[in-house]
Amino acid sequence: MTEYPCSRYHIHYSRQPTERILLISASNVLDTPFELGVYSFVENTPDPETGRSLTPTERMSNLLETMELADQVGLDVFALGEHHRPEFLSSAPAVILAAAAARTQRIRLSSAVTVLSSDDPVRVFQDFATLDLISQGRAEVMAGRGSFIESFPLFGYDLKDYNELFSENLGLLLALNEAEKITWSGKHRAPLNNLGVYPRPHQEKLPVWVAVGGTPESVVRAASLGLPMALAIIGGMPEQFAPFVQYYRETAGEAGHDPDQLPISVNSHGFIADDSKQAADDYWPGYQHIMGKIGRERGWRGTSRAQYDASIGLRGADFIGNPDEIIEKILFQHNFFSHQRLLLQLGVGTIAHSKVLRAIELLGTQVAPVVREEIRRRNVIREIAG
Amino acid sequence: MTEYPCSRYHIHYSRQPTERILLISASNVLDTPFELGVYSFVENTPDPETGRSLTPTERMSNLLETMELADQVGLDVFALGEHHRPEFLSSAPAVILAAAAARTQRIRLSSAVTVLSSDDPVRVFQDFATLDLISQGRAEVMAGRGSFIESFPLFGYDLKDYNELFSENLGLLLALNEAEKITWSGKHRAPLNNLGVYPRPHQEKLPVWVAVGGTPESVVRAASLGLPMALAIIGGMPEQFAPFVQYYRETAGEAGHDPDQLPISVNSHGFIADDSKQAADDYWPGYQHIMGKIGRERGWRGTSRAQYDASIGLRGADFIGNPDEIIEKILFQHNFFSHQRLLLQLGVGTIAHSKVLRAIELLGTQVAPVVREEIRRRNVIREIAG
Repeated sequence: MTEYPCSRYHIHYSRQPTERILLISASNVLDTPFELGVYSFVENTPDPETGRSLTPTERMSNLLETMELADQVGLDVFALGEHHRPEFLSSAPAVILAAAAARTQRIRLSSAVTVLSSDDPVRVFQDFATLDLISQGRAEVMAGRGSFIESFPLFGYDLKDYNELFSENLGLLLALNEAEKITWSGKHRAPLNNLGVYPRPHQEKLPVWVAVGGTPESVVRAASLGLPMALAIIGGMPEQFAPFVQYYRETAGEAGHDPDQLPISVNSHGFIADDSKQAADDYWPGYQHIMGKIGRERGWRGTSRAQYDASIGLRGADFIGNPDEIIEKILFQHNFFSHQRLLLQLGVGTIAHSKVLRAIELLGTQVAPVVREEIRRRNVIREIAG
Repeated sequence: MTEYPCSRYHIHYSRQPTERILLISASNVLDTPFELGVYSFVENTPDPETGRSLTPTERMSNLLETMELADQVGLDVFALGEHHRPEFLSSAPAVILAAAAARTQRIRLSSAVTVLSSDDPVRVFQDFATLDLISQGRAEVMAGRGSFIESFPLFGYDLKDYNELFSENLGLLLALNEAEKITWSGKHRAPLNNLGVYPRPHQEKLPVWVAVGGTPESVVRAASLGLPMALAIIGGMPEQFAPFVQYYRETAGEAGHDPDQLPISVNSHGFIADDSKQAADDYWPGYQHIMGKIGRERGWRGTSRAQYDASIGLRGADFIGNPDEIIEKILFQHNFFSHQRLLLQLGVGTIAHSKVLRAIELLGTQVAPVVREEIRRRNVIREIAG
């Protein structure tokens, strides 16, 4: 494999070689297999079919089972979000990911996202470096500003500093990644005067992704820093995000980074069943429950079943269907994104555990092999043409 | 089993019944088996025998193996400390404990200690509530002011507020334990205005212990709040701490708490080998290395081998010896403490992994059964004597 000069914040997988996880840093993103994964906020709302709610302990146990299965069926990533609301159990993603690390072998363990604006980058670094040691190099941080705002009053931050806090905290997190002892000062946190932060991770650096929701400013930030970008597409027509991706790659290039070394992830809602209509019917009640409840708080218009059905179509945002439909949609989007990763939130609201397990099995065993092979073929052609 | 009125911050084990872990809350501490456990700061210094250092990843893997073994041999508690120094890997105890939770069945998982003065009680509560869900009710928090000071500049706190920060943060942690939504304000953290903190733990409340080093003020705080107390005895003559224990129980009683519902733990250095001299020789080099290194920074007088050998004797602080000697020393101390738990730090500095595993095996299989049975017998007599 060709040795490439590494970008400053490259994705460093070198100590965890597996068949699937290759050296992004040693080559470029075209040489790496397409990655498929799952993310969750660990929702715990009543099961729409039974009306029954699980205890938080049962829900956590089920979650860990899904993470273990995702590893077993060869998925590449399991990521956990951060919410501070009673409907969700994941306010401390690194703690749950550590439990999953102890029960899995190869799957990468990420946040999606760490709400970095309202957290202390030193604690975040320590948590994920610890996770990285436990998982022997499978940790990553996906940093975002967060689309929910509960964490701001809870941790004493002002929403007017939303953007500035994110910039400053991301800068500190990256600085902690660069050197064991650092001297740093900022506006929103106590300065560090030649202090060390421990433990150091297993990987040379923690992979840090930036999650963006489509704000051009966020895209510029990720690109300028040479950080991989996760694009949350949970509504509208995904093809309309293509200019953002193009903009990201151009801006990265202008900032002196090699766009071919910067992977892009699409993060979307999704659900997979053997039967197409079953998938749609399984996903809808929990989705409607959560979107209605949170939507009311936020003054959203409700989502109708007709809108939902439209979002399931090839050009809609949601990956809901049978394996063939999911494969088609991934490949359709790959035409205009040329992305490297897809993460699906399998359930905005509660879906029966057995169905979630089946969705993971289908994603790993029926969707992933076909998608990886087809995208590998496309990339070979692109490199030959290139 | 008799139903007793619960104390305000009782130790609630009821959803995790095992042969050994009985309902402290349902009765009093005299009815509960004596608990034995281990704590560690996850030191990672050169092996005195080989001169070789493990990688942090190897050290973490070894740690998890010791935690798993501790569970298998029936020890009651594994606790992790918090340090922010290059010699130690445990700066995020809850993350490591979560990995252990996934690999163990019955052992309780605690911090020893969470440096609460320099942490955010909301994050601490979230981390340990999450751990509690993962472990199905085996989490506890041992809160302390910390005898190391690295965390203060790192997290932007002033050492002059050392005590006030601890009081305020402990108050908030207990308040979070009491109610899902709280309104709170203090001097060192943003106020909470009818905000909820999630997830909620599996246990009715997270058990919160207070670790004290022998400061009467700390003893009064633990007693007044009706919190179980862990007494760190890592030097001097343990019997000189007996008045503190007496003072704790009296003060708790005066504050309206039932001392019989408040367990006391002794936390000390220790090491066990089949042969008495071997235990002393195995423990000494790493101990000398760490105590010398940290001691120099702090201006301590060095520890001589003669002083160390004295600390091993029956009336010394260190539990180092063969199983019979450890049993004797525990029972000797029980004469004046009537305590309910002993936690041993098996290695201040590095000791070969195989020897640590053997120490845990001996503690679980040879020391614990004899100690539990003898103390059970004593407690029966004490209750009859009334």
